[in-house]
Amino acid sequence: MKKSRYNMVIAGATGAVGQEFLTVLEKRNFPVGDLRLLASSRSVGKKMKFRGMDYPVYELKSDSFHGVDIALFSAGGNRSKEFAPHAVKAGAVVVDNSSAYRMDPEVPLVVPEINPEDIKKHKGILANPNCTTIIALMAVWPIHRLSPVKRMVVATYQAVSGAGAKALEELEVQAGEFLEGRELTKNVFRHQIAFNLFSHDSDIGPEGYSQEEMKVVKETRKILHDDSILVSPTCVRVPIFRAHAEAIHLELARSVSVQEATEALDAMPGVKVVDDRAGNYFPMPIEVSGKDEVYVGRIRKDLGMANGLNLFVCGDQLLKGAALNAVQIAEKLIASS
Amino acid sequence: MKKSRYNMVIAGATGAVGQEFLTVLEKRNFPVGDLRLLASSRSVGKKMKFRGMDYPVYELKSDSFHGVDIALFSAGGNRSKEFAPHAVKAGAVVVDNSSAYRMDPEVPLVVPEINPEDIKKHKGILANPNCTTIIALMAVWPIHRLSPVKRMVVATYQAVSGAGAKALEELEVQAGEFLEGRELTKNVFRHQIAFNLFSHDSDIGPEGYSQEEMKVVKETRKILHDDSILVSPTCVRVPIFRAHAEAIHLELARSVSVQEATEALDAMPGVKVVDDRAGNYFPMPIEVSGKDEVYVGRIRKDLGMANGLNLFVCGDQLLKGAALNAVQIAEKLIASS
Repeated sequence: MKKSRYNMVIAGATGAVGQEFLTVLEKRNFPVGDLRLLASSRSVGKKMKFRGMDYPVYELKSDSFHGVDIALFSAGGNRSKEFAPHAVKAGAVVVDNSSAYRMDPEVPLVVPEINPEDIKKHKGILANPNCTTIIALMAVWPIHRLSPVKRMVVATYQAVSGAGAKALEELEVQAGEFLEGRELTKNVFRHQIAFNLFSHDSDIGPEGYSQEEMKVVKETRKILHDDSILVSPTCVRVPIFRAHAEAIHLELARSVSVQEATEALDAMPGVKVVDDRAGNYFPMPIEVSGKDEVYVGRIRKDLGMANGLNLFVCGDQLLKGAALNAVQIAEKLIASS
Repeated sequence: MKKSRYNMVIAGATGAVGQEFLTVLEKRNFPVGDLRLLASSRSVGKKMKFRGMDYPVYELKSDSFHGVDIALFSAGGNRSKEFAPHAVKAGAVVVDNSSAYRMDPEVPLVVPEINPEDIKKHKGILANPNCTTIIALMAVWPIHRLSPVKRMVVATYQAVSGAGAKALEELEVQAGEFLEGRELTKNVFRHQIAFNLFSHDSDIGPEGYSQEEMKVVKETRKILHDDSILVSPTCVRVPIFRAHAEAIHLELARSVSVQEATEALDAMPGVKVVDDRAGNYFPMPIEVSGKDEVYVGRIRKDLGMANGLNLFVCGDQLLKGAALNAVQIAEKLIASS
């Protein structure tokens, strides 16, 4: 579908990721033709800015996709399941940020810097991986190419933005209430998030792992095309607004030096090495917020395990962890078509 | 030195841990005779409450220890190195919360629930382990007894209290400034701590590990009397006031079931199992703050590694991580003498 402009839909436009879709499309000068913003009936009537113009928000419906080339979805898994097939039927290609289709064998799961070749296998739907997975793999992939990852132990420090726009507000409101000694307002998270942290707020499965943790396990294997990789995750929500951090401990097939790893990470598009040992300066959520790159530091050999290599990564959950990666998929899609 | 009352000194009384020493001694009804509060010259003239009475703060000096039975030190490593020998010379037994003597082969490093037998080897000084190490080992030890730990990967979520009373204030002040959009005051930490996190603010050594991380490695081996244990740490400071959390991934000599591990943790004094998968309710810093117990949850088998077992622990950094453990050492000391 090579065109000079692409008619686009954003489903879930008023959410935290939806708003970032607009910012990213504008910043990257994506060849947007007609643009239709869709959300639930609650948001109908709102207006959102794109390239200096007001766009009204319409209700997401099964007949919303007439004449659409590309539909960016971030409206939750249930809405993706219900409406993405209508978009495909109308002739659009869907890039879906929800978890609905990620593990569907018919649907490519893509980080454009890692497995762009999977894009061409799509049958109308492309899945954007989970934010935690994308941010981890941007750092792990260049090392995996030097020496295959046998096992990855990952502990996360996840921002509230992954739970949506209302979660961002909840952290801010609660922090103010806490400082003033008032009762805390809890709408999004069941536990206090201000000045607290807790195991990721997704359901725990029979093995004792949260859905978020299982996403990291399964999506890592699918994106790297290697079902033998062992992943041992602990996902934790922390009182940070919009950037995830992850402590990653890798066991590799063979020993990789810090210098080899650093050079590979330096050469990786979309990665910035921030690793100043003398200055005690490494990736931090506040510095990566609003940035496209995933920051990687604390690159060091494991203590005692010769094939071990450890990293600390930070990435903007709403950008590379969501909207930016999805728009990059769309860019690759139109470039290859 | 069996006595009905013990003359005591608290060196570093005005610090975050020093204040907790008073609370813990009072709460546990420790047989305190004369009590002398010592701090730097800056704090001379301050008064602190103990059992309803005001105690003046004196300057910590080499001649501060006349007639003292037990000296609790938490005044920083340099002051411990300078003044603990004077206390010992004056006939006191020192329980030192700093890192000054922890790795000294002549000095026992003790968690009373784990290696109380080491106390009797003291030659005047007993060392209180690093907070992160104590909190981890309270959960790891009962499992280590079921099957030896071969390797421990640990990622920490460390409260600011570990950096002292001024760090607690800095988090509160910065959070308020951030919410009001004002410039942030930075005195204690070089990086913003409110709504941010960063690699632990201790110096990075030649292997790329922070001093804090190396403490966990070395102290774990010393306390468990097993130099073969591999420890792979990532220590991170998070915007939490006074309780540390840790994601612990264990590789054991043989497979241990979740039930075995849970029973062993349930039976461990000083540990509380908080592990409600259905309710998504696990250890949290706010709930363990002010509590004596270390909370343990997320007890689950590793995915794919048969001998792997994973945990999530939380403990009050100032209590079991510092003042409580030191007072417990003193209790064992007087009980066994």
